[in-house]
Amino acid sequence: MKNLTIDPGRLWDDLMQTAKIGATAKGGICRLTLTDLDREVRDWFKTRAQALGCTVTIDDMGTMFARRKGQRDDIAPIAMGSHLDTQPTGGKFDGALGVHAALEALTALQRAGYETFAPIEVINWTNEEGSRFSPAMIASGVFAGAFTRDFAHARKDRDGESFGSALEKIGYRGSEPSGGHKLSAFFELHIEQGPYLEAEAKDIGVVTGVQAMRWYEVTVTGQESHAGTTPMPRRHDALLGAARLIDFVNDCARTFPEAVGTVGRVEVRPGSPNVIPGEVFFTLDLRDPDSTVIDGMEKEFAAATKRIGDALGLAIALKPVSNVPAVHFDKDCIAAVRAAAKASGFSSRDIVSRAGHDASYISRVTPTAMIFVPCKDGISHNEAEFSSKEQCAAGAQVLLQAVLDYDRQLAERES
Amino acid sequence: MKNLTIDPGRLWDDLMQTAKIGATAKGGICRLTLTDLDREVRDWFKTRAQALGCTVTIDDMGTMFARRKGQRDDIAPIAMGSHLDTQPTGGKFDGALGVHAALEALTALQRAGYETFAPIEVINWTNEEGSRFSPAMIASGVFAGAFTRDFAHARKDRDGESFGSALEKIGYRGSEPSGGHKLSAFFELHIEQGPYLEAEAKDIGVVTGVQAMRWYEVTVTGQESHAGTTPMPRRHDALLGAARLIDFVNDCARTFPEAVGTVGRVEVRPGSPNVIPGEVFFTLDLRDPDSTVIDGMEKEFAAATKRIGDALGLAIALKPVSNVPAVHFDKDCIAAVRAAAKASGFSSRDIVSRAGHDASYISRVTPTAMIFVPCKDGISHNEAEFSSKEQCAAGAQVLLQAVLDYDRQLAERES
Repeated sequence: MKNLTIDPGRLWDDLMQTAKIGATAKGGICRLTLTDLDREVRDWFKTRAQALGCTVTIDDMGTMFARRKGQRDDIAPIAMGSHLDTQPTGGKFDGALGVHAALEALTALQRAGYETFAPIEVINWTNEEGSRFSPAMIASGVFAGAFTRDFAHARKDRDGESFGSALEKIGYRGSEPSGGHKLSAFFELHIEQGPYLEAEAKDIGVVTGVQAMRWYEVTVTGQESHAGTTPMPRRHDALLGAARLIDFVNDCARTFPEAVGTVGRVEVRPGSPNVIPGEVFFTLDLRDPDSTVIDGMEKEFAAATKRIGDALGLAIALKPVSNVPAVHFDKDCIAAVRAAAKASGFSSRDIVSRAGHDASYISRVTPTAMIFVPCKDGISHNEAEFSSKEQCAAGAQVLLQAVLDYDRQLAERES
Repeated sequence: MKNLTIDPGRLWDDLMQTAKIGATAKGGICRLTLTDLDREVRDWFKTRAQALGCTVTIDDMGTMFARRKGQRDDIAPIAMGSHLDTQPTGGKFDGALGVHAALEALTALQRAGYETFAPIEVINWTNEEGSRFSPAMIASGVFAGAFTRDFAHARKDRDGESFGSALEKIGYRGSEPSGGHKLSAFFELHIEQGPYLEAEAKDIGVVTGVQAMRWYEVTVTGQESHAGTTPMPRRHDALLGAARLIDFVNDCARTFPEAVGTVGRVEVRPGSPNVIPGEVFFTLDLRDPDSTVIDGMEKEFAAATKRIGDALGLAIALKPVSNVPAVHFDKDCIAAVRAAAKASGFSSRDIVSRAGHDASYISRVTPTAMIFVPCKDGISHNEAEFSSKEQCAAGAQVLLQAVLDYDRQLAERES
């Protein structure tokens, strides 16, 4: 079992090959979910998996499952995977690494003629990013029962096209009901998207869970008026209130050691250079491994809306839109990852994921864990995102070992 | 001459009648320049002027001139007027009052059978607002030689339609070359759009000039990155820099007694709730009656971009896009307005216009002055904009008297 090794060059070549599908001038990928480019990379995935002797099934959320038989084909497969969609200005590794490493692990098994106890699957989850259809991780969410399929199919993009219609259009609406597909375990390899592994020169992050996240929508209402004729003391400038809140979010998050707070989307109305803004809408994203810290930040932010609103004569509405609790992964799956890193000779540390992943939802219904590898300067959701060939290979090797370790545990339990 | 009086009810009824063309649910008007609604109000204007015995000519910028003969038809007319286009969420009085009051003054002359020395004209300038086609006051600007006609005709709206094409489409491209039409003087009545007359309970503002205005475009460049995984100290958040600059503009403008500073349009990129903004674009509008004050604000703002940019690791570019110097109106025209207010028994004060007007450009080529009337709470560029029937009537009466006073001066000079 220790002799099974993945091929770093083959993995890297595959990553670079599919990176051409939706390649951007700055070296990233723009491959939004359920577009023609997404179809193209799905076709590549299907062809590759079938060439490895896998059976490919697709569920009614468009999620793809490539299955390699095991000794006991009657038990649920151990799955690996991630997603092949990207942000509008995404990098080459977010999502893609997890799918390609899983295919590479499966290739290593195939080449070695190694027969696992359980069937092994490689999964490509639909719309992890949520850039085109909100919310993010919608297919794994439906799989885990967090959303209904009908809710998901009705989501619309900015042009008014629904998820369901886009899915039909690219020909990837399968017949299997999402969530009907049982798994024995799920392992997801991903780039860290943060700076900690690189800073501590660790090869592998043993991901023990995912930090809690809450989203809000904030609407600041003032009074639109003429920019030339309204004296400063008489203004009710919604943008000034929003600016002070944006500054406050930064100050507030910095008072907690691990918290982050982000305003990412802002709409200023009416948006004319010579009109004082009467309304500003913005999103607020607060995260921390400990949800009581988010409670504290929410309370402080609410107090700031009152204070700033009163000072400027503005009405400020704070609307919670989502609340994702902290996730704690399965202890056996975590142990398998930790053991795999050690057995493969890599340095590792436990780490909490700062980003949501398909694994977050899947952990609700299946024993799950994740593996992180470092990425340069912690940069992600950016065309400059980078992990080296060696870093990617280390992650793929640990992924393969962890799956084999879990498969052995499963065999022992069943025997 | 003192017996000539305008009819407050007729003026008010006309204002309310055309306010239906493009009426909004909140009681304002959305009548963007060169749209079908603009054509409708132009048709109304033409019909009304012709019914008063006027000849209506149209120049190649679509500006309309309704002419009533004088004793001496060989000399250039004394003109009154303003504009009939509105902001997207405009009120009933901005622009419309100046045109309607001029028509009402002309009606009073006609009904009284009063023959002026010079011909009298009522003007409806095209695209004063600049909301659909930038820059604002483009037709009076071409008239005064600030822009060429070809530049103006090539301006495009957000849908890519050109000014020239839209002008042809509504059938209001005239044959007279803009600027070829000589005027002896120009008087524009307008609501103040600010709070001073109301605060001091003055009926009439004798407008001595227009404050200076400068526009800039600011681009803040940071680094877009994942909102969940990028620790606060490692961020280069372009929006945080923009927020601090927006706050600074407010603080800075408040240190000068008459200055105003406004950020009206903001674009945050990529604009995703879970991505730290990598780039923010915003407009900056600085105004003061004294242009050296704007010099000072510009210098302080530039220093702030350096300070804030360095602190957050951002690149901040400040690009000047327009520089409109302070305007000083013609002393004889100002005197005519002051005398007219006094003769009509209205209280008045001298005032500097805080907004640009067609009169600003026209003053470059013709003796010009303006008359202001109060508006409720100083609110303008807003559907709630309001001046009372009595306030509108006072302005129209002073407009008529000022024109007659100037006509008398002209007659004395020519005799």
